[in-house]
Formats: sequence, C-alpha cells, structure tokens
Amino acid sequence: MKDNKHEQKRITSRSEDFSEWYQDIVDVAELAEHSPVRGSMTIKPYGYAIWENIVKVLDTKFRETGVENAYFPLFIPEKFLKKESQHVKGFSPQVAVVTHAGGKKLDEPLVVRPTSETIIYEAYSRWIESYRDLPVLINQWANVVRWELRPRLFLRTTEFLWQEGHTAHKTEQEAEEKTKQMLGVYKDFSENFLAIPVIGGLKTESEKFAGALRTYSIEGIMQDGKALQMGTSHNLGQNFSKPFKIKFLDEDNKIKYVWQTSWGLSTRVIGALIMAHSDDKGLVLPPKISPFKVVIIPVLSGNSDNNNVLSKADELAVKISKELGVEVKVDKRDETLGEKHYHWEKKGAPLRIEVGPKEIETGKLAVIRRDIGDKLTISEDVISSEISKLLDDIQSSLYKKAVEFRDKNTKEVDTWKEFKKEVEKGFVLAHWCGDADIERKINEETGATIRCIPFNQKKEEGKCVYSGKKSEGRVLFAKSY
Amino acid sequence: MKDNKHEQKRITSRSEDFSEWYQDIVDVAELAEHSPVRGSMTIKPYGYAIWENIVKVLDTKFRETGVENAYFPLFIPEKFLKKESQHVKGFSPQVAVVTHAGGKKLDEPLVVRPTSETIIYEAYSRWIESYRDLPVLINQWANVVRWELRPRLFLRTTEFLWQEGHTAHKTEQEAEEKTKQMLGVYKDFSENFLAIPVIGGLKTESEKFAGALRTYSIEGIMQDGKALQMGTSHNLGQNFSKPFKIKFLDEDNKIKYVWQTSWGLSTRVIGALIMAHSDDKGLVLPPKISPFKVVIIPVLSGNSDNNNVLSKADELAVKISKELGVEVKVDKRDETLGEKHYHWEKKGAPLRIEVGPKEIETGKLAVIRRDIGDKLTISEDVISSEISKLLDDIQSSLYKKAVEFRDKNTKEVDTWKEFKKEVEKGFVLAHWCGDADIERKINEETGATIRCIPFNQKKEEGKCVYSGKKSEGRVLFAKSY
Repeated sequence: MKDNKHEQKRITSRSEDFSEWYQDIVDVAELAEHSPVRGSMTIKPYGYAIWENIVKVLDTKFRETGVENAYFPLFIPEKFLKKESQHVKGFSPQVAVVTHAGGKKLDEPLVVRPTSETIIYEAYSRWIESYRDLPVLINQWANVVRWELRPRLFLRTTEFLWQEGHTAHKTEQEAEEKTKQMLGVYKDFSENFLAIPVIGGLKTESEKFAGALRTYSIEGIMQDGKALQMGTSHNLGQNFSKPFKIKFLDEDNKIKYVWQTSWGLSTRVIGALIMAHSDDKGLVLPPKISPFKVVIIPVLSGNSDNNNVLSKADELAVKISKELGVEVKVDKRDETLGEKHYHWEKKGAPLRIEVGPKEIETGKLAVIRRDIGDKLTISEDVISSEISKLLDDIQSSLYKKAVEFRDKNTKEVDTWKEFKKEVEKGFVLAHWCGDADIERKINEETGATIRCIPFNQKKEEGKCVYSGKKSEGRVLFAKSY
Repeated sequence: MKDNKHEQKRITSRSEDFSEWYQDIVDVAELAEHSPVRGSMTIKPYGYAIWENIVKVLDTKFRETGVENAYFPLFIPEKFLKKESQHVKGFSPQVAVVTHAGGKKLDEPLVVRPTSETIIYEAYSRWIESYRDLPVLINQWANVVRWELRPRLFLRTTEFLWQEGHTAHKTEQEAEEKTKQMLGVYKDFSENFLAIPVIGGLKTESEKFAGALRTYSIEGIMQDGKALQMGTSHNLGQNFSKPFKIKFLDEDNKIKYVWQTSWGLSTRVIGALIMAHSDDKGLVLPPKISPFKVVIIPVLSGNSDNNNVLSKADELAVKISKELGVEVKVDKRDETLGEKHYHWEKKGAPLRIEVGPKEIETGKLAVIRRDIGDKLTISEDVISSEISKLLDDIQSSLYKKAVEFRDKNTKEVDTWKEFKKEVEKGFVLAHWCGDADIERKINEETGATIRCIPFNQKKEEGKCVYSGKKSEGRVLFAKSY
C-alpha cells in the first residue's frame, strides 16, 4: 500500500524534535497508526511483521525453559479483580468495562483484561492439587486494554499486544529463581536480538507491579537519554495464591499455598527498537528482527534487458534466501530506482542490493548497508557468505554503538545540582536513602524516577543525593517513557 | 497438570449421548474448560497446542497467496457498525458493549469486535487511493466476541480465536476469484490436515453473512450426522466500500469503489476435529495436527535398569524427531505403564512406543496405533522410516474413514416423508424451489437448514421436496452445529 503523502513526507530530525521524529519514523516506515478509537492503534503489515519476529524468537526461548502456551478469557468478572487489594487499586483507574451484552444489561460488569493474574489464578486454584502438579509454567500471547489519556504509538496505547507468563511453584526460592530466569530471557532477547543493552535490577516499592512482592525490570536507554522499561518479571510471593486459594498437598502431607511469578513483554519494545537505533533518514533495524534482511532492487530501463534483470534478481533472492535461511525481498514495484532506495532506507532494511545490466555483465554487485550507509562492491560468486558476514556485522555494530551511547550517557552523580543537570540528558547513578518520600520528591522536582536498583550495584557507602542520609549503593535514575 | 478426578473419569459413549461424549472428550483430553464468565472458555495448553498447529499451517498457506498479517483494534465505535445496514442488523444482538473506561462513562459506547469489517474498512478508505495500491490482501489473527446464551466449548463460545482475511480489489471478478480461492485454501486444509472431507458451495440468501453479496462455505459431517461449517468466504461486492467510501483512481482515470472479500476460520474447527474422528476411548488426532506425533513410554521397574531405559527413550526421541522433523514426547511422569498408555490414548497421540529392558535387549519396539489400536513390533534400526509410513497411513486412513462415513450418511431424497426421516441421521441432498419461505418452513418442521448449494451440483430437473415446485438441482440439507 503505497501512500503518496507518506512517500513525500519530510522526516523531522532528532535534534529538532525527538518526539515528532519518533512519530515520523512510525509513519514513513508504515509501522502503525492511531485508530479512530482514541488511544487504540492499528499495527500495519510491516510493523506487525516485526512483532511476529519478536514473538517467534521469544516463544522459542520460553519453550526452552519448559513453558507451554494457553489462552484465558478476555473478560474478567469485576469481583476477581477485587480479590487482591493492591492489584485492584493499581488497575481500577485504567480498566474498560463491559456493562451490556447480548442486548441486555449484565448482572455483573465485566472488565476487559488489563493483565490476567486474576482470571488465570482462579483456574490455577482448580487445576493445582498436589506437589506433583507443580511447577505450572504457562504463557499466553494476548491483547490487553489499559485506558490511556495520552497515547503514543507502541509506547502507550489503550490496547496492546503482549505475552504474559504465569508460573506456580512449591517454594519461595523456586519462584524467585524463575522470576530472575525470565528476566534473564528478556535481557538476552533485548541485547542479542533487539541489539539494545539493558540494565537489570529491582524496582522500588513505589514502582513495583500492583500485587507483587518484588518486581525486576530491564531498562534500555533511548537516543534522547530517556529510559524505556523493556520487560518486567514479578515475584508475586503468595499475594495471589492466598486470596485465590491456590493450595497444594505437599510431599510432607501438608496443605500449602503456591509461590507465583508473572512476567511480560509487549509491543512497546517496537517503540524501543525505533528510539534506540533509527536515524534522521528513517528506521534502522537489527537484522535478526528485520522482516527482510536483504532487499534486492532491480535496475530497470525501458529496454529489453528488463526481463533479464528481473529474473537475475529473483535468482539471486532464491540463492541468498536458501543459502542463508533469511528473508529476501525483490522490490518489483513500478517506481524509480531512487524511490526504491529511499523506500527501503526509510523502512530500515539492513542491506540493499542493486541488480542491473551492468551488474550482470561484470558479476559485481552494489550492496548498501542501512546502518552506516556504506556502498560496497561484492563479487556475485561470494555474495551469500559476504551478506552473512555483513548481517552479523550490522547486528553487532548496532549493539556496540548502543552500548557506547549508554555508557557515554550514564553518569555517576553526587550532588543535587549535578543530578538535576545530568538527569535531563541520560541515566544517572546516584545514592538514595531508600525513603519512598524522598523518591517521590525527586520525581516531583525533576520528573525522573528510580528505574531500578541494579543487580550489579557496587557496595559503596554514600549519602543520598537529595536527603543527604546514609545510602549503601547507587540506584539508576532517569526520565522515562 | 494431572487432575486426578479427570484421570478416573468414565467417558460417556457416543451411542449413549453424543453431546455428553463430546464434553467428556474435551475434558479428559484436557483441551478446554468453561470459564467463570458465562460463555467464555479457557483453552488449556494441549488444546492450544492444536490451535497453534492450525495457525502455523493456515498462516503459511495464506502467505503463499500473497496475504500479509496486520492487527486492528479490538474496540469498534458503535457508529462504524451501523454504516452497513444488514451488517449491524446481523451482529447487534450479539455484541458486548464497553460503556465505561478509565473511570468515566464514554461519550460513545464501544463495541467489542464480533468481526472486523467495519474497523478495517475505515482504515482501507484512508490507505487506498490508486489502482496501484490494489489488491490489498490482509489477514489478522485475533479474538472476537459474540454473546452466546447456549455456549458449547469450541463450537459456540462468547469469545473465540480466529483469523479474518480482508481483501480489496479493482474488479468484481477478481474479488469473486479471491473469495473462491480462499475457500479452496480452507477445503485443502480441512481435507489434507484435519482429515475432514467437506462439501463446498454457496450459502442461501437467508444463511449468508450479514452484509455479504454471496457467502461460500465448506461443510463437514460429524459422527452424529450433523453438519459443521468449517470455514466461510464472503464476496462482499461493494456493500462495504460504498458506505465506507473505499475509492480508488483507476488506470482509466475514473474514481471507482473497490470490490471486497472477507473469510474466516475459527477455534470451532477443533470441535470438528473431535466430532469427526474421536472414539469412546478419547480423542483421535490426525498426525499432521497433533501436538505430539509420537509418545515414547519408558517401561520402568524398581531396579537399576531405569537409567538405561530413560536414556534409551531420550535417544530414540531425538533420533525420530531429528530424522522425521516431528514432535516426539517422552512421558517420564511418575505413573504406571497402564496409566501412561491410558493418558495418551485419551489425548489422541497417533503413535505410542514402549521402551523397556526387553526392548533394549531385543532391539524390537512395541508400537501402538491410536486410530485402530493395532500393536506392532518394529525393529529399532528401521524405526524412523516405519514411523513415517505409519503416520502417513494414519493420516490417510482417518480421511478415508471420514469420506466413507460421509458417503454412507449422505442420501438423495425425493419425498417429504423420506426427507424427515433421513435428515435426522445425516446429510440430505434434495430439491428445493429456491423460495426462502419454504426454506424457513423446512427448518421449522425439521430443525434442518440448507448448508449450501454445492459447487458440483448436478443439473437435474426435479420438484421441491416441500413445495413440489420446480427445481433445477439438489441442495445440501442437514441439522447443524
């Protein structure tokens, strides 16, 4: 679906207006659009293809840890949501409520799931009886709804797609290990597939999931220095198993409550993908997550060579796709050469190959890298192996560049003056006394929040950057999406 | 998740009570269960794994026809639904309505999608401008909600999972071809993967999709003689493009309305899978759609052989899975041999292999076919190739058996007396005058409907089985799910 208005659209530069630039990238790369229902989005085919790749990779990783998929209902009886007091407090302001159905007013309103702990744990309370039924390791891929007043495509939308894993265990220790294991899966995915380095750690009490004992998150840095939470993993303790009565008969013949975890990652990581790597020319995608790794652009003239060129392009596409097992697209649209390059540059295809009469004659192909714009000449007989190396190099270069950016924009800060200045620009590692009131005051004065208490926090005595009170280590502060 | 109550449960026989039998199979095979929200279902891991296989196969087939996936919003503004008069009339009684969200009453109620024509076509009206944008070939995998007062797991549930394809074309002919092509995809899928033979044809005016010009369907026969509609494909004509103003500038420089199709297949085919093949012992699954093709059951005793046996079972699983590219499961649960056989018999695993000390010693393995219960002895060195043949044979045997059943239970009938008798038992091919009133009267008197006017309807002059008026061919009558 070509949209002429988009093809011509100028992209706002990042330095001009980061937020406009983001919207322009989503637009020109044809990833998504706002729907007529305020806050909802339509994910267009190219954006959805990125999500499908994310799903494929993560789903495989989950299965390797023993997780199975299932599907639970969209609608949750209001009374279920109310069973865990913190949970209902956290989610009530955000829910959409079905009050009428089948032409009648319902006796009890139904909540459209904002997350599925309550509906899933009601089932677990019936499914789990004995220690032999444990652990339960289930994930679901689903849409969820949280009402948004200030929607932003992928980042904050009323409806979004995600996965939510829900596990139940015999012991507290097993649940804690699972919580961290799944955060590790997210970290590995984020760094090795999305090419986004992340800092993992514990959320503070004020920032944890409504109903959790502890929440862990991974935090990525965007090109404007803000943090984006890429995924969260919650140790729920027995906070849900008690109100939902999820009990089991243990080997010692005692009835016990299970220990639980839940963990989720959503379409908002596509927003991270955009903001971590893209440039003023358009989207930049890490090869491992790009819908097409290579786009072949036939150089067509008005003459009889065209059939030759097109069949050569097809032949090359089949060859590369077969030898490397990657997705290759031939752009046969009735457009100019320039327009096609421009089109795939905006869409972030990692590599473009030009094939024309000259290339056929010489056996040398022009290959263009999207990330750094290099134009290379590669002999046709080594094309697959060279493409393979280039894709690896793009993947690792993007990651390396993102790590450098993160390191350059992460500052250890010890004074409040410095804090206020640096937190406008990036990540800040500063001492905090552990007091939630101070955390709130820092947020009110700077807009920054504690993203997490990093796992690798070094033991270092210090003074809270705001209160001056004693602190035992630095925590990660940033403004965030 | 073992559920002791289920393990012990007796399965009602088909002859005793077909409907109870169906419910028992869903239950003992651990496919799904009713959720606390009336009409909704929870799809359990084993049932969901079947759906995942269905998705995988169909999604590949769709892509081969040029279709891309996308995702459109769950919520539809009520006014969109009202734009096509037949459409709103058909779906209004079934919709669930969100009236409150984010703690406030909404200005305009939102309908939870019962199907997505209206929300998708609003987007198409903005996306499509020129003949160069056509055809648009988009599919979405999604959940939809249609309020159900008499829910049955998989067959009729308030929420279900499905795919809905939505295409837009330049010409009426192209749309008609696409409508039939996608029905062909469903037929191929149903016959070659689900092993369910179907009769394809045109729906009558009274039975067509609300808003369609013409609806085509494929109809399968269940073991109780009732029909189940396995998939439908609609030629929407310009019924939606006109109210939604989906226009394009054609090559002849004229503004025209697009021609559209939509087509869908849902989790209800899992109901068909159960009712077409299963028996009084449990589920029977065609290998191509079974989550596990082979289950290896280690024969464990109390002694030291156990480690040997388990590692042999693993080795065999890796070997078969690698050589044939199929899913193999080793059942290592702490259960008796008998219980494990019983478990996988109920779950319909196509083949079970026993591995114990005796098998290791002799190199001969006991292989049990789920479909006909045969116990074979197969030498270990040819196990993969023999398993491969057996899986093919089970797949084709199930299909053949289903074809024979269908043929045996399809009667050409010419008198009303005969009609009433035969339609209680199976498919009836009878003459019908084409009058919708007569169609309604036949339904009122027998409960049967016209399932479709078959594509391969032979030209045959006759008299309507009810009115005695002239008819030009036989149509397919049956009671249905």
